[in-house]
Amino acid sequence: MEFLDKYQKIIAETIEKYKFKDMPEELYEPMNYIISNGGKRLRPIMVLMGCELFGGDISKAMKPAIAIEYFHNFTLIHDDIMDDAPTRRNKPTIHTLHGINAGILSGDGLLLKAYQFFEDLEPELFKTCIRIFTNTGLRLCEGQQYDINFETQRRVTYEDYLQMITYKTGVLSAAAFEIGAAIANAAFQDAENLSNFGKHLGIAFQIMDDYLDVFGNAEQFGKKHAGDIFENKKTILYLLAWENATENEQKELDDLYSQKTDNVEKIYRVEELFRRRKADEKTLQLVQKHNEIARNYLDKINVSDEKKKPFIELADYLLKREN
Amino acid sequence: MEFLDKYQKIIAETIEKYKFKDMPEELYEPMNYIISNGGKRLRPIMVLMGCELFGGDISKAMKPAIAIEYFHNFTLIHDDIMDDAPTRRNKPTIHTLHGINAGILSGDGLLLKAYQFFEDLEPELFKTCIRIFTNTGLRLCEGQQYDINFETQRRVTYEDYLQMITYKTGVLSAAAFEIGAAIANAAFQDAENLSNFGKHLGIAFQIMDDYLDVFGNAEQFGKKHAGDIFENKKTILYLLAWENATENEQKELDDLYSQKTDNVEKIYRVEELFRRRKADEKTLQLVQKHNEIARNYLDKINVSDEKKKPFIELADYLLKREN
Repeated sequence: MEFLDKYQKIIAETIEKYKFKDMPEELYEPMNYIISNGGKRLRPIMVLMGCELFGGDISKAMKPAIAIEYFHNFTLIHDDIMDDAPTRRNKPTIHTLHGINAGILSGDGLLLKAYQFFEDLEPELFKTCIRIFTNTGLRLCEGQQYDINFETQRRVTYEDYLQMITYKTGVLSAAAFEIGAAIANAAFQDAENLSNFGKHLGIAFQIMDDYLDVFGNAEQFGKKHAGDIFENKKTILYLLAWENATENEQKELDDLYSQKTDNVEKIYRVEELFRRRKADEKTLQLVQKHNEIARNYLDKINVSDEKKKPFIELADYLLKREN
Repeated sequence: MEFLDKYQKIIAETIEKYKFKDMPEELYEPMNYIISNGGKRLRPIMVLMGCELFGGDISKAMKPAIAIEYFHNFTLIHDDIMDDAPTRRNKPTIHTLHGINAGILSGDGLLLKAYQFFEDLEPELFKTCIRIFTNTGLRLCEGQQYDINFETQRRVTYEDYLQMITYKTGVLSAAAFEIGAAIANAAFQDAENLSNFGKHLGIAFQIMDDYLDVFGNAEQFGKKHAGDIFENKKTILYLLAWENATENEQKELDDLYSQKTDNVEKIYRVEELFRRRKADEKTLQLVQKHNEIARNYLDKINVSDEKKKPFIELADYLLKREN
């Protein structure tokens, strides 16, 4: 996608430009390591897109955009410790390379650096952005805690799940767009509509992620096939299958999800159950539903259709992926 | 100390008033646990004192004061994980009770809550305070990393040590006073002088802490006698002894500090070496030196001597303690 490439190039250059040279190296080198290690960098791009949509000065949005990327990587460093993840983007995680303490401390430092990257904004705007940013950070912590709770929580409802993914994924894309809009001095209602576009795009993206884990092309998806089933994660597929299952099937699902096994037979049985209860179709319908909600919010924004095109392209790119 | 009691009471009430009721409980309960578990709460008191010194409205400084206490406790939660500390203020640490993941996440949440507690300030002041706050947070991370580095760094100079304790202890008391002064709209130079008072008070306090670890009354000090020697920590006593030692004594010290042993014989030998090289006296002289520097900064501040009295009392209280 041409416009994404353009943004990605600017973001990559800016990240390189602001590479940390502070001391001590042991603190800042892990931050540079994760930040330089790519990823799609969608969230900083959303800041720039939000700013451009309302005719803002993109150079003013650049450091806040990088701040959002720092923040995202702070959560990745700490989440990887919590999930005991050995790799991220095909490279060893920070705590794998340098130990848990280095992971904790460089994560903390990166969060603080993110705050610092808003400091070029004038006070009113600074406060607006920091409020959004802090609030978003707290929601992300809450979402992470709900996710942890789900592991031991016997029944997880669809509402529980929706709140969890909204906090874990939706609020950060919402905040990225909203901060971009704020920097462009967008009207309140326009900024709010763009924020809601981002929220539902994030939700749809996360639901799609659950779907692809089981029904995607594993090679392209770049993750272990059905890793969520191995981990007994209560994803949307599990929830929808369970809610629509007979009593016997529910017992079977409960039984299967109480086993911690690498036995592939378990995967086949769970997948079969997902299909039988049409959890796969229903999940794609939910992706579509949140995509449409997002689209409706986009429609309401008071700018030309021409300017909205990249937003529709972004949604298509994120939701029509097979990986 | 009467004026400290008065402040401590206000802080305790305010902390109780703002006790977190947010969900999920698993995230916020550990934050309430550590925050409610007391401590001297000197840092929030410094915010209030800084505000009152310049005739500011103490009610306006209350939430920022609490923010500083949240921040301090965020560092304690994460430091306790890094130090593998089982207890804090005679109660189990958060990661001991709920696991490392809960410690990481509730620490992160508490840092974000700290930011939120500045949001009642008007934009200009908000930005001033947040800048100080973020900058201080980064210095603390750096100080913690230097402290970790010292464990494996063969030679630590006095300058290295001074920078480390300045970052780990000095900057937060400096920031607390400075934020209080800013809220009272103090003149720039006055705020800076008060900040420097806080910095050197913090440095003196930390040097005293090193001294008391070995030469204090262990029962009153509330920590294991000579814990730093057991842990081979390169404290100011060690540095001063080493710098003034003969070549043979240096070898002996190096040898003793390369052993990880509970053998009390090691403690006796190290203590004897500290005394022989007058590290104890020299350390107390350094406490005195930084106390005097602090006092000089206080003298320069443009308010009546009467108003400065509590600051001198605070320094006396912190530095003349035997525990």
